[in-house]
Amino acid sequence: MKIVAAKKLLKANDQLATENRAKLDAAGVLGVNLVGSPGCGKTTLLEALFARLRSATGALRPASGALRPAVIEGDIAGSIDAERIAALGVPVVQINTDGACHLDAVMIAAATDDLDYGSIDLLVIENVGNLVCTAGFDLGEHVRIAVLSVTEGDDKIVKYPAIFQGSDAVVITKVDLTPLTNFQADRVLGDVRRLNPEIPVFQVSALKGDGIAELAQWVVDQHARAQDARKS
Amino acid sequence: MKIVAAKKLLKANDQLATENRAKLDAAGVLGVNLVGSPGCGKTTLLEALFARLRSATGALRPASGALRPAVIEGDIAGSIDAERIAALGVPVVQINTDGACHLDAVMIAAATDDLDYGSIDLLVIENVGNLVCTAGFDLGEHVRIAVLSVTEGDDKIVKYPAIFQGSDAVVITKVDLTPLTNFQADRVLGDVRRLNPEIPVFQVSALKGDGIAELAQWVVDQHARAQDARKS
Repeated sequence: MKIVAAKKLLKANDQLATENRAKLDAAGVLGVNLVGSPGCGKTTLLEALFARLRSATGALRPASGALRPAVIEGDIAGSIDAERIAALGVPVVQINTDGACHLDAVMIAAATDDLDYGSIDLLVIENVGNLVCTAGFDLGEHVRIAVLSVTEGDDKIVKYPAIFQGSDAVVITKVDLTPLTNFQADRVLGDVRRLNPEIPVFQVSALKGDGIAELAQWVVDQHARAQDARKS
Repeated sequence: MKIVAAKKLLKANDQLATENRAKLDAAGVLGVNLVGSPGCGKTTLLEALFARLRSATGALRPASGALRPAVIEGDIAGSIDAERIAALGVPVVQINTDGACHLDAVMIAAATDDLDYGSIDLLVIENVGNLVCTAGFDLGEHVRIAVLSVTEGDDKIVKYPAIFQGSDAVVITKVDLTPLTNFQADRVLGDVRRLNPEIPVFQVSALKGDGIAELAQWVVDQHARAQDARKS
C-alpha cells in the first residue's frame, strides 16, 4: 500500500499550486482552470471569450472590462489547440502530458516560466479533456470553470459530481444544438444547484455568441475581486 | 520512484484480465469493452444495438445473427445507465468506481460473479466516460470499441491517439448532427487509418438507426470468430 506516498504527492502538488497562485497574485493575473470532456468546446469557448474581451476596447490591452489573456494548453499529444490560440495573437504555451490524464501544479510551474506575467491580466489553463481526473488537482488557479456541452446529455452532473461540485462556475456550451437533442437545461440546473447551490451557470453558444458577454463580464469581475483581495 | 510497484499492479491487472477472458471463452461469451468520452452516446448506442440484435429473431435468444446480451456499467456515481439497460430486459450489473477514472480487471472479476454466463452470448462492459485512462487497462474483453461523437469534433484522434490505436473498432456516433457541426468524417478516417490501418469504422446515428445493422453484424461476426478460435 502506497497511500502515504500518494498523499505526499498530493501535498507536494498543493504546495506548488499555492506557490503558482502567489506568483499570479503578485502580478495581478487571474488564473482560470478550464475543465471538461474531450470535445465539449473549451477551445472554441476561449476563442469567443477572447474576442469579447478584446472588443471591449478594440485591442488586447487592459481597460475597463478588458483583460489581456494568455493560455496554457494541456493535451495528451499534439498542439492543435495551441495553434488555434496563437492564431488569435494570444500568448500560448503547449504542455504535452505524454499520456497523463490531467495537468498538475508541477507542469504549470514549468510552463509559466515561458510567460511574461507583466503583459497579461488573465491566464487560462485549458486542462486535458477529462471530466474525472482533472477534479483532484489544484493547479494554482483562482477559479475553476467546468464546461458541459448539451450534446453530452443532461445526466452528466449526477454521473460526474466531483468536477462540478469543486468548480466556481459551470458553462453549458453548444446551446444552439439544444432543439436537436433531448437535453433539458432545467435538469442540469437542478442537479448543479443540489451539489453547489451558489454556483453561477452560463448557457452559451460560442459559435452564435449567446451568453458570451455574461461569461466575459463574470471573468472580468473575478479579476477585479482577486485584485481587491490582494490589496486588502 | 514507484515504477516497480506500478508495473506490478499492471501485471496483476493483466493476469486477472486473462482469467476473465478465459471464463468468457469457456462459456462462449464475447466480451466487449466500450470506451469513449462522457456523453459520446455509449448507452444510447447499446440501446440501438440490442434492439437490432433482438429484432433478428424477435426475442433475446441465440439464433443466426442474434446474441443474448448482458452489460456491466461502470460509473463514478449513480446507476442511471444501468437503469436504462435494465429497462430493456437485459441483465446488468452496475459498478460504482467511487471516483476512479476507469474500470479494471479486478472490478470486472467481482461484477461477473453476479452474471449467469450460461444464459448470455455477449457481455458489453460500458467503461467510465474517459478517453484517456481507459486506454491502459485490459479488462479481459475480446474486442474494444472506441466511440467518438461528431459533436466532439474531428480533431480527437490526433489529440487522444492511444485509445483509438489500441481499439478493434471505432464507432462515430450522432452522425445525424453532422450538418450542424464542422465535423469532417474524412479527417477522422484518415487519422484513424494512420494509427490503425485495418480498423473498421462505423458511422452511426443510434436515434435514427443509420449504421446500426452494420455494427450489429460486426459484433455477431466477432462472436462467431471467438467461438471458432476457442474450438480450434
